[in-house]
Amino acid sequence: MNWERFNRFYSEYPSIGLGLDISRMNFADDFFDVMGPKFAEALSAMQELEKGAIANPDENRMVGHYWLRNSGLAPDPELTKVIDETLADLESFAAAVISGEISSANGKFKSFLVVGIGGSALGPQFVANALGNPATDQLKPYFFDNTDPDGMDRVLAEIGEDLARTLVVVISKSGGTKETRNGMLESRAAFESKGLKFADHAVAVTGAGSQLDQVASSEGWIKTFPMWDWVGGRTSELCAVGLLPAALQGIPIRGMLQGAAACDELTRGDDVSNNPAALLALMWFHAGGGTGAKDMVILPYKDRLELFSRYLQQLVMESLGKEKDLNGNVVNQGIAVYGNKGSTDQHAYVQQLREGVLNFFATFIEVLKDREGASLEVDPSVTTGEYLSGFFLGTREALYEKDRESITITVDAVTPETVGVLIALFERAVGFYASLVGINAYHQPGVEAGKKAAGAVIDLQYKIVDYLSTNPEKSYTADQIAQNIGAEQQTEWVYKVCEHLSANPDKSVKRDQGDRPENRSYQA
Amino acid sequence: MNWERFNRFYSEYPSIGLGLDISRMNFADDFFDVMGPKFAEALSAMQELEKGAIANPDENRMVGHYWLRNSGLAPDPELTKVIDETLADLESFAAAVISGEISSANGKFKSFLVVGIGGSALGPQFVANALGNPATDQLKPYFFDNTDPDGMDRVLAEIGEDLARTLVVVISKSGGTKETRNGMLESRAAFESKGLKFADHAVAVTGAGSQLDQVASSEGWIKTFPMWDWVGGRTSELCAVGLLPAALQGIPIRGMLQGAAACDELTRGDDVSNNPAALLALMWFHAGGGTGAKDMVILPYKDRLELFSRYLQQLVMESLGKEKDLNGNVVNQGIAVYGNKGSTDQHAYVQQLREGVLNFFATFIEVLKDREGASLEVDPSVTTGEYLSGFFLGTREALYEKDRESITITVDAVTPETVGVLIALFERAVGFYASLVGINAYHQPGVEAGKKAAGAVIDLQYKIVDYLSTNPEKSYTADQIAQNIGAEQQTEWVYKVCEHLSANPDKSVKRDQGDRPENRSYQA
Repeated sequence: MNWERFNRFYSEYPSIGLGLDISRMNFADDFFDVMGPKFAEALSAMQELEKGAIANPDENRMVGHYWLRNSGLAPDPELTKVIDETLADLESFAAAVISGEISSANGKFKSFLVVGIGGSALGPQFVANALGNPATDQLKPYFFDNTDPDGMDRVLAEIGEDLARTLVVVISKSGGTKETRNGMLESRAAFESKGLKFADHAVAVTGAGSQLDQVASSEGWIKTFPMWDWVGGRTSELCAVGLLPAALQGIPIRGMLQGAAACDELTRGDDVSNNPAALLALMWFHAGGGTGAKDMVILPYKDRLELFSRYLQQLVMESLGKEKDLNGNVVNQGIAVYGNKGSTDQHAYVQQLREGVLNFFATFIEVLKDREGASLEVDPSVTTGEYLSGFFLGTREALYEKDRESITITVDAVTPETVGVLIALFERAVGFYASLVGINAYHQPGVEAGKKAAGAVIDLQYKIVDYLSTNPEKSYTADQIAQNIGAEQQTEWVYKVCEHLSANPDKSVKRDQGDRPENRSYQA
Repeated sequence: MNWERFNRFYSEYPSIGLGLDISRMNFADDFFDVMGPKFAEALSAMQELEKGAIANPDENRMVGHYWLRNSGLAPDPELTKVIDETLADLESFAAAVISGEISSANGKFKSFLVVGIGGSALGPQFVANALGNPATDQLKPYFFDNTDPDGMDRVLAEIGEDLARTLVVVISKSGGTKETRNGMLESRAAFESKGLKFADHAVAVTGAGSQLDQVASSEGWIKTFPMWDWVGGRTSELCAVGLLPAALQGIPIRGMLQGAAACDELTRGDDVSNNPAALLALMWFHAGGGTGAKDMVILPYKDRLELFSRYLQQLVMESLGKEKDLNGNVVNQGIAVYGNKGSTDQHAYVQQLREGVLNFFATFIEVLKDREGASLEVDPSVTTGEYLSGFFLGTREALYEKDRESITITVDAVTPETVGVLIALFERAVGFYASLVGINAYHQPGVEAGKKAAGAVIDLQYKIVDYLSTNPEKSYTADQIAQNIGAEQQTEWVYKVCEHLSANPDKSVKRDQGDRPENRSYQA
């Protein structure tokens, strides 16, 4: 097997409890030499960033998530102060909720409902799952992470009678995210339908002066925690966005911060061979030739890390999936990320990984500690955890035999510290990789188009409903409606909106039985 | 926009409540003509299959999941009878559990724990999520879907005191899957630790005469349901594997079967333009040029369908990810599948989909019905569901503007029938696509290597532990141990096993502080 190469290309970082094995990546002998100058540039770009350079010129923002876990590094003493104070405030708030000092009209809070989406949900969900424990959690976490009414009804059904003792944490940096606004309104309606005063259950995490901030303030919500413009949504887990839910659940958040701070410290080093974030970024570059030609398949062999790949989908794909490089050339960069957990995923798609289309590299995450306490022996002297480990090693070998490349990250255990390490490690690897391929990792210019178009659909719906309800005497085809409201270019949307309206009885739009979209008609 | 092309390439199937829009795929005008002869072959291969041809020659098996939902099609009256009887038996069993006629020593069963992995978990999880309702479920579902001891501890913590009223459904076709065997043993230990008799809580779903069947029979489990060798794991949702858990939850399983049967019926048709499974398969072929060059991104705009992409990861990737074609040529086929749900995923990675590396096509799933009952208006006359719909249309448009292709599947609502339709639709599309690219969709030769290697790791661990415990006086490096147990070729595994052993205190293997793998040593 691979013992010699493993010894050569396995690196270990006791200060952060991490091992990194890149021996199963087939880079050429001179790869690190060739990449040296490029990486030196990436390192110096990162140094500028951390000093407070405007790294996100499109949005004229600093990028400061590193300061969250080492506030002394912030480029301004006022920033340091506000970071420290917010953290202390958040801890004492969570402690007061847990102790019952802050409570609902119906007694101590038993659970909390996070209302957020994207960067305001993926981190909290990942951490709740990775570090929570149903037997000992202080408050039980729930999430509204979409604007699906049926999905929200389901979460409310799960919460059931406990709603009267549920704290709602509404998280939106901009304060204007529609999904989150909708989730807030739906949760408010649920409280009101039970005769509960929503404001006495509600906490906001948002930018100062945002729409959400104004609502929270005018309605007298329990508390508002700040978000800052120098923290991007996808790197916000270690500000109030992630720390407040974690603290409410009873997770030791200082451990997460310490882990991330230690990983930041380590990955500032300019010796590539001792910098795991540098090594990761360089391996991604090697795997996909710097063009994203290979998908990143994330396979943690630990149920608790199951949501890490979803967290990474945002961190990696939103950061790296860019049309243009820093010089404005069209490059269509990115790396696709998917995966759930091993050995479960072995039974889903290792068949394809081993034999099928070679469009990926795997990233295994190995956790050495199996469980709390002693283990049952399922065979003489063999535990379930040893089977899990055996499946990891076996699968990795089966891929290796077929020249499928893999990276292995090893951690001692899933703890607040290692979760902080994993978050910081991938954040920095993403930053380095962006430099290596010459793109801005800190903006997301492509997300506006879809939101804007969604707004246009809603505007169109107003016009359609208005037209149909002021002309109730007969029914109209999509073409006719489009023509009458001056939306000939949007006839397909008119049709889709009418179909949706007519499928929901409370909207009072009927459709006839026309057999094709073009001859189907609608009536209010 | 796309209205004309939409009218041309949108097809609707009222008998199964399905619409399929391929207008946003950029196939050439003569695409269907060119593909005609190839598709005719695929259709006739499927006809042979359904008649009971040995379609899986490697394993000398028939492929009969179609018969599950229309037992009259089975090629043998005995098969028809056993399908019908099993279904009736399963329904009356579930009814007896729900009514309390079959109950635990501590009262009616309140919940059930499925122990299974891969095809024995992904379908049940998808359906439990898609069709369950926490407010009205008859029994509450839980899952052991891995051999992670900590993961199992967590599920047991969630079940808590209800374990005394939990039914365990152990599912393994072969009856020898180690993860499932381990999950069964861990759950048994949990019952025994509370003084509960496991056999009085346990039901098996497995092949006749399997290891699991023998255990269930010798221990006197409540009941055993059969699995048949003509049903593959990844197409087993509509046999007892999926139907028993669904029935226990209170889901109308006949609706699922009817939906699947109706979809099968429809997709047997030889008119491609009226066969949605044919259209899907051809679009996959178009998108990736028949080589899997594009990933399939699944974006259902409905929380209930969130696990569909995980279900499809197995169905598609395990079926299509093949090294060799039917003639034995190396082809490395497959299509990678990922996705969770919209609009949530928009906030994670639509940035990359719109702007980044063009290595995918999207499959949107639109659900017209928003929720049970009337909706709150979050803006005047606008509901959360209309926002969800707006985000779907907006995102699809944003991708279209950048020449990103997409398919849209529309269903009226998420019901047992439509879930059956979706399962059958993708099963048949996978079958057609496999024919188009000339591979066997019904075997999985690549999964054995990893399992075998895992077994070799476990065997190696025995030798290592044996060696260390019979030589406790000093400590040994991985090299030394490997040499002494005759495993010089497996030194890396020896090292990994020793690291894992020494990280778990109950294993009593200590390691010294050597700074590199090659000079670290271990002692029992």
